Amino acid sequence: MSGGAVECRTALGAVDEQQRLARVALSRIVEPGDELVGGWLRDVGPVDLVRLLSGPGEPPSRASAERMAGYRLRAARLDPAADLAAMEAVGGRFVCPGDGEWPQQLDDLGDARPIGLWVRGRPSLRMWALRSVAVVGARACTDYGAHVAASLGAGLAERGWVLISGAAYGVDGAAHRGALAADGATVAVLACGVDVPYPRGHADLIAQIAERGVVIAELPPGAHPTRSRFVLRNRVIAALTRGTVVVEAQYRSGSLVTARHAQRLGRAIMGVPGPVTSGLSAGVHELLREEAVLVTDAAEVIELVGRIGELAPERCGPVVPRDLLDPCAARVLEAMPARASADVRRIARGAGAGYDDALARLYELQSLGFVERHGERWQLVRRQRASGSPRRGGP
Amino acid sequence: MSGGAVECRTALGAVDEQQRLARVALSRIVEPGDELVGGWLRDVGPVDLVRLLSGPGEPPSRASAERMAGYRLRAARLDPAADLAAMEAVGGRFVCPGDGEWPQQLDDLGDARPIGLWVRGRPSLRMWALRSVAVVGARACTDYGAHVAASLGAGLAERGWVLISGAAYGVDGAAHRGALAADGATVAVLACGVDVPYPRGHADLIAQIAERGVVIAELPPGAHPTRSRFVLRNRVIAALTRGTVVVEAQYRSGSLVTARHAQRLGRAIMGVPGPVTSGLSAGVHELLREEAVLVTDAAEVIELVGRIGELAPERCGPVVPRDLLDPCAARVLEAMPARASADVRRIARGAGAGYDDALARLYELQSLGFVERHGERWQLVRRQRASGSPRRGGP
Repeated sequence: MSGGAVECRTALGAVDEQQRLARVALSRIVEPGDELVGGWLRDVGPVDLVRLLSGPGEPPSRASAERMAGYRLRAARLDPAADLAAMEAVGGRFVCPGDGEWPQQLDDLGDARPIGLWVRGRPSLRMWALRSVAVVGARACTDYGAHVAASLGAGLAERGWVLISGAAYGVDGAAHRGALAADGATVAVLACGVDVPYPRGHADLIAQIAERGVVIAELPPGAHPTRSRFVLRNRVIAALTRGTVVVEAQYRSGSLVTARHAQRLGRAIMGVPGPVTSGLSAGVHELLREEAVLVTDAAEVIELVGRIGELAPERCGPVVPRDLLDPCAARVLEAMPARASADVRRIARGAGAGYDDALARLYELQSLGFVERHGERWQLVRRQRASGSPRRGGP
Repeated sequence: MSGGAVECRTALGAVDEQQRLARVALSRIVEPGDELVGGWLRDVGPVDLVRLLSGPGEPPSRASAERMAGYRLRAARLDPAADLAAMEAVGGRFVCPGDGEWPQQLDDLGDARPIGLWVRGRPSLRMWALRSVAVVGARACTDYGAHVAASLGAGLAERGWVLISGAAYGVDGAAHRGALAADGATVAVLACGVDVPYPRGHADLIAQIAERGVVIAELPPGAHPTRSRFVLRNRVIAALTRGTVVVEAQYRSGSLVTARHAQRLGRAIMGVPGPVTSGLSAGVHELLREEAVLVTDAAEVIELVGRIGELAPERCGPVVPRDLLDPCAARVLEAMPARASADVRRIARGAGAGYDDALARLYELQSLGFVERHGERWQLVRRQRASGSPRRGGP
């Protein structure tokens, strides 16, 4: 299992070690979404910026003395190499802009783009996020909300889509569980370090997602969630996905913030209606009266996000030649039956891979346009004879 | 009570007796919404048309021999004068295009415009329909649907709006009852004669609406409902009102037909969402995914229909000088306190009118821009000093 994790790790790409260490350092110095630092980072790059924030020099543009003092206080006691080593020891990694695994849609956040992401899990975050949808909502949801969230999670999974949420109680947790129960792909975006199980009651769920899916955070290892970190985490969920579905939310809830972020970023925003007599649907109805599209099931979600500006390359066929696939993905692809479909267990056996590894690679191969999921089964995307381009994956 | 009904009856207007009798005859000859006959009626007028349909002459444009035989069969045994007399004996009347009480928005139906309307009830149908909203939905509704329909009926009434529906079981009945319970104005549009209590179980409700509101039908006295009459009745509900709200409807339900009629006529269409797990909300959700606006209470309904093309004159102030009001309406207006608001009971006492008469006149006076309702109380619309025009009635 851990052997598979090492063997199948996606290559991190071309960011040089000095830059990576500087970004690790910055992830300890600045809070998520700090656009002032984001602007400096754009101007001088990570290595010089760490120097500026640590030393007595002045930054490229003005900041209050208090703010500078805050940065310098944090910059005074850093050991990015040790941070990286500790994360690698627990099977994690730090993914930066420029890395092969960096999800480029996060660049839409401009100067509020994450400095980097701490990542746990086998799959390529980038590949998985290409065909992903966020399902978010109330922590104190009703049975109805939990049921709908779980159905959406399962329905998205059965159609080969990746479910991204915040691992919170209520709607988030139900959506993750629904995806896992349907052998699906799911990503948890935390508002704390990826090694901090928050909320406590979801420690097992988060561990399961790290094992079978991906857990990510902007915050460095050991960091604890705060109110503003929750709010800023939402922009990452919004930016990573093609669309955000809100399932139960009161007026002025954090889920509505995520949805409005998504809208500003040009992503689809959707809401699941409920009884007008339920305060937990009032926020969703408010959203539906503004801009959001009413959806009642996963098929309607996919109908909408499938149309939104294509982030995924699968419509124009594989973008990576077979020869350039990593060895584990190549073995999984070779294990696919030529004409029929097969379930994950059989494909994993054929590839000599673990179940979770095989599943992770199948979702990546789907994003690359090689395979597609139909319910419980996977099959090769057949090329059309006339044009030579493969049929579109997914429904 | 019956004295008040006679005394306060709105003048029928200028349609001559021969034309009225011809339209009464036509209401027995043709089915609602017959556009072929509607076209002929436009071309030759009602008197000549009855002659053509009764005698051996040819109509202005072609009709199948079978269809003509059908008209002639019905035309052979008519006694419109007796029909009118029988209706008047039970306190009803026949309202035609050209009458003062004719709701002109029905002209939007073109050749499918009703030939005339059989009407029971004290109030002026025209005045009441000016500020009206339709609430329709499933007969076999859930407790949730009935609760929402009743709340909408009451909420519209409390804001001085008139609730129009079809008196059917389920949503229709709950909406009518909600309006009546809040001392509101309500109109039932039947798919049978106004003297036929259908459905049976709503005989008391329909009698109550005839006593305190208005019951109307295109079908002549004694006519029974049929499937197609229900469908065609819906176009009258759609055309009479400024907007249609659907509360619970399955896929392909009749309520959706009403809503789509309303949309084609440029009226507002609205839907109340429910749980996505409820088949009785599936039709509404379908409508909301197309063109309808999601509404959760009466205030949101009024916010929307208040903006739609103004049928009511109240925004530009009273259109009828005080001197031209009918005697009962004039007495009710005189009984209004100069500055304060009052409840119906006190106004009725001051006007020397019955409770139901006073209420009917108050809604008419509201449509004419003289008074406005706020919850349980009514007050004079105050004129603004600068422009001399009255404040807009209603919220």
